[in-house]
Amino acid sequence: MPGQSAHEDEPGEGDEGGNGLRARKKLRTRRELRRAATRLYAERGAAHVTVQDICAEVGISPRTFFNYFESKDDAVFGLDHRLRERVVAGLLARPAAEAPLPALREAILAAVPAVVASDTEFARRRALLHTEPELLDRPLRNNRRMEEAVTAALAHRTGAAPGDLYPHLVAATGLAAMRAALRGWEPRGGAEGLTAALEQAFALLAAGLPVPSAGPARVPAP
Amino acid sequence: MPGQSAHEDEPGEGDEGGNGLRARKKLRTRRELRRAATRLYAERGAAHVTVQDICAEVGISPRTFFNYFESKDDAVFGLDHRLRERVVAGLLARPAAEAPLPALREAILAAVPAVVASDTEFARRRALLHTEPELLDRPLRNNRRMEEAVTAALAHRTGAAPGDLYPHLVAATGLAAMRAALRGWEPRGGAEGLTAALEQAFALLAAGLPVPSAGPARVPAP
Repeated sequence: MPGQSAHEDEPGEGDEGGNGLRARKKLRTRRELRRAATRLYAERGAAHVTVQDICAEVGISPRTFFNYFESKDDAVFGLDHRLRERVVAGLLARPAAEAPLPALREAILAAVPAVVASDTEFARRRALLHTEPELLDRPLRNNRRMEEAVTAALAHRTGAAPGDLYPHLVAATGLAAMRAALRGWEPRGGAEGLTAALEQAFALLAAGLPVPSAGPARVPAP
Repeated sequence: MPGQSAHEDEPGEGDEGGNGLRARKKLRTRRELRRAATRLYAERGAAHVTVQDICAEVGISPRTFFNYFESKDDAVFGLDHRLRERVVAGLLARPAAEAPLPALREAILAAVPAVVASDTEFARRRALLHTEPELLDRPLRNNRRMEEAVTAALAHRTGAAPGDLYPHLVAATGLAAMRAALRGWEPRGGAEGLTAALEQAFALLAAGLPVPSAGPARVPAP
């Protein structure tokens, strides 16, 4: 189906390979491997899934698998490196006069709902992290790498010296706001629900985190 | 030396055991194990250090080791669980009418400089994480646990419903600010230097992360 791939769970990957038949085929294989890997992890538990099992589902060789992913965990959790690339590219493309926090907010709003809401395995992966918390190391490492990449991009934008507090503070707190919004997001809410949660989180951050006006359900008496 | 232990690298641990001889001896053993573990990791690399090696340095049995730590990595990176307990206890002890961000700021300022600045292995551990990045999983998991504990404490304070954005947002961004300050901190600056960095980070967070008035060294032209 021409043009469909860009709307599925690998948006942006069509960009590299153009619209050729071969690029579309690679995109499809990658998506199938990701889905098979995530499904098998959910069904059997990570320890009982091998690269060979994943390959058998899709009908490719393990050798080919390693053209797409570094490891079985990478097939399940590798989505983040594309998010990282998009957020960093978006950040570097924002007007140079824009302040760091609004620039990061715009880069995240432009990239995250599109990538995440079209990720059909999101809910399954979230459930996996609940049942197998030791799998968390991988996404936590991805978060760390994203924080480093965004810090570097912000330092570049602001001309900060290496080790300056400010770019790291904006990157770390802005990405923490992104993760807080993602954590509460219900995948059935789609991209719009995620955009709204991200906007709310960044509005609170930009305002200095006041208690939201709707207020919590109950404030204990002093 | 009576009273000295409270000023060394395990502040707070004296609290549990009172001031008895036995409690002080346990505290000393724990500190010696931590130091030996961190030093051996730095000298040989984590993969080439066993629990037995660490025990041999201190003259205790591996069986006794496991009364103090869950694993060799825990001996090196286990500092955080005490930080977590202190920050959460501090947070729950703040006046109920205080808003979440100032309450978290005060809990962090009361706990972190005291614990971290008296941690004689801080610089060594930081260097270790540079030379052996795979060791990062442990502190990243500690960060995650701290975020969960602080979110729960803030949700309790504000009476938020489970899954509410606000308590998680304050916990995640406040702890991100703490880590950003820690990351730029020079251990030779002592507790005062860390307090100043934390105050600066929380002031910027409370103000909505404006570009600091001193300003970055260079702002690229639009």
